[in-house]
Amino acid sequence: MAPRVRRRVFAVIPAGGAGSRLWPRSNQATPKHLLDLDGSGRTLLQQTHDRVSRVADEVFVLTEARQEEAICAQLPGLDPAHVIVEPTARGTTNALGLAAMTLAERDPTAVMVSLPADHLIQGVRAYNAALRCAIRVAEASDHLVTIGLKPTHPATGYGYIRVGKPVRHGRDEAFAVARFIEKPPAERAEEYVKAGDYFWNLAMFSWGTTAFLEELARVAPQHHEGLRSVLAARRAGREAQAARIYSDLPNEAVDYAVMERTTRLLLVPASFGWLDVGSWSELHEILRKDALGNAVEGDSVLIESSGNLLLAPGKLIAAIGVRDLIVIDTPDALLVLPRSRAQEVKRVVEQLRKARQTKYL
Amino acid sequence: MAPRVRRRVFAVIPAGGAGSRLWPRSNQATPKHLLDLDGSGRTLLQQTHDRVSRVADEVFVLTEARQEEAICAQLPGLDPAHVIVEPTARGTTNALGLAAMTLAERDPTAVMVSLPADHLIQGVRAYNAALRCAIRVAEASDHLVTIGLKPTHPATGYGYIRVGKPVRHGRDEAFAVARFIEKPPAERAEEYVKAGDYFWNLAMFSWGTTAFLEELARVAPQHHEGLRSVLAARRAGREAQAARIYSDLPNEAVDYAVMERTTRLLLVPASFGWLDVGSWSELHEILRKDALGNAVEGDSVLIESSGNLLLAPGKLIAAIGVRDLIVIDTPDALLVLPRSRAQEVKRVVEQLRKARQTKYL
Repeated sequence: MAPRVRRRVFAVIPAGGAGSRLWPRSNQATPKHLLDLDGSGRTLLQQTHDRVSRVADEVFVLTEARQEEAICAQLPGLDPAHVIVEPTARGTTNALGLAAMTLAERDPTAVMVSLPADHLIQGVRAYNAALRCAIRVAEASDHLVTIGLKPTHPATGYGYIRVGKPVRHGRDEAFAVARFIEKPPAERAEEYVKAGDYFWNLAMFSWGTTAFLEELARVAPQHHEGLRSVLAARRAGREAQAARIYSDLPNEAVDYAVMERTTRLLLVPASFGWLDVGSWSELHEILRKDALGNAVEGDSVLIESSGNLLLAPGKLIAAIGVRDLIVIDTPDALLVLPRSRAQEVKRVVEQLRKARQTKYL
Repeated sequence: MAPRVRRRVFAVIPAGGAGSRLWPRSNQATPKHLLDLDGSGRTLLQQTHDRVSRVADEVFVLTEARQEEAICAQLPGLDPAHVIVEPTARGTTNALGLAAMTLAERDPTAVMVSLPADHLIQGVRAYNAALRCAIRVAEASDHLVTIGLKPTHPATGYGYIRVGKPVRHGRDEAFAVARFIEKPPAERAEEYVKAGDYFWNLAMFSWGTTAFLEELARVAPQHHEGLRSVLAARRAGREAQAARIYSDLPNEAVDYAVMERTTRLLLVPASFGWLDVGSWSELHEILRKDALGNAVEGDSVLIESSGNLLLAPGKLIAAIGVRDLIVIDTPDALLVLPRSRAQEVKRVVEQLRKARQTKYL
């Protein structure tokens, strides 16, 4: 056995997409991760970068070409060479494959951790501990590792992962993965929470760059081949060709194309305050509220009103006799709906897209 | 009997106040009469001026000093000498007394008609006919004349006038006035509409300037004396003194101080489309609505929403699953409340006043 050397850790922050469920705050020009959603003064992307900088040797941001400028503006300390640019959004298999292949060229022995740019974390210590554990397990096992969060309630908005046998790596405990489950109905979600062997799928990963590429070549060879061509074109300075090849690749989620097919997968269990703020009602949950449950941004006069999320920065917001309502005001758009229907905001975005009212998207 | 000569007709448009019930559109800087409420392209003041110009020989606007500039801006054709300036708002007795006295100096034989600046009229022909009738009756009878509108429904937001015996003046019919009634409860209002001898009090008047001043001297001598001093001070160029005297006068409504006390009062009945848009729910009634009863200003995406008044000019307004809601967006403020509570908007204004948040008033 070769002497164990500490492998370099590259963190990758995938920061793509737009997030139609937080429209009109999030939109094409300002995706969710570029927003300061919790009023902390730091955007979700900045918070993620702050956190992972403490764990990784180098931090990379993975994004689409059109977002590169905004991202560099928010992270002035980021070396532009540490932005891995996807020619276009083309699914997480290609995105993570592109990142792994790019980083493997830099250091094939490196361990890569991938952390979404748009999650809110409460309790950075527990989060970093889980990250370090996942890195150690990836190093020791040469497996792909996914971090699973112990569910705190029967959420229906997240995917679940059912685990199998425990696997010890030194002082770290991991689990074999039994199966992936898409967002379940409420009764199922309750069973999962009670059962104890289900975890929330956070899309947080750790793996040796080489291990991931080996598995990609094995279970998703079309992606692996295509990405090799993309990188070859890029190395030759033929970016337009790289973009063409990339956009012709199948658009598939990494859970489906790789994770559910690989036999080299472990789950590291974790517990930390985590929120994928995917809707206005979820934001209402985490924001500070008055005694009647109103979360308000802006000056306000609230009369007999309760349970509302009212965001109108720079304005006076006045409400009389309204309950459990969401009102989001931006310079271009005004959104009004009951909290109970927060998941339906994307219907507005879809209608705007159909009507080609792109200025509001 | 002296030969009958046609007397000159001076129209006076009282245009004061702010109208807290249409906050935040109406406010200190932009009172209700300066708004284009019905989307016609003309503000209420402009519409009133347009209408009465067809009936009167000269049109005057009666307002507070602080509104003079805005009013002249909206009525570029108005001779600045035709703005009668109240030093400050001090009740309708003083306002109309000041106007009558100012106009009597110009022509003591003139007939004055006073028409509020902030009413919406549908059917100008019937309105002008009623006005001409009131002018003829005032001329022929030398009485004070109030125009009463035949009620179309048991409104609880308006005052009523009960009439007594009919009085003919040539081809015009008028009535003696039996009594004035403040905004009644619903059951009472229903009785009034059924009874047939009750009319809505529109605060539209016609009288000879001299007749009004005689009655003012008789039933409200303190006002008459004070106003004489105000005009004397003004004639001598002592405007500050005029303002001091004026602001010390008792603050009383003309209905109470003059109309209920004079014995020289007639009511001219009228029927025309009339609305004192005193609340957002009343505006919702008159605006054009979609098939689901939504009145919207601004681009919109409405999903399963009905009966709403949504005003966000220049913005996209998106609503999902909201009913009978009022949302009014301005650059400074955002108001949200159910249509059923539209009368309570003034509570917001009161709270702002108490908290001295004057920038929103």
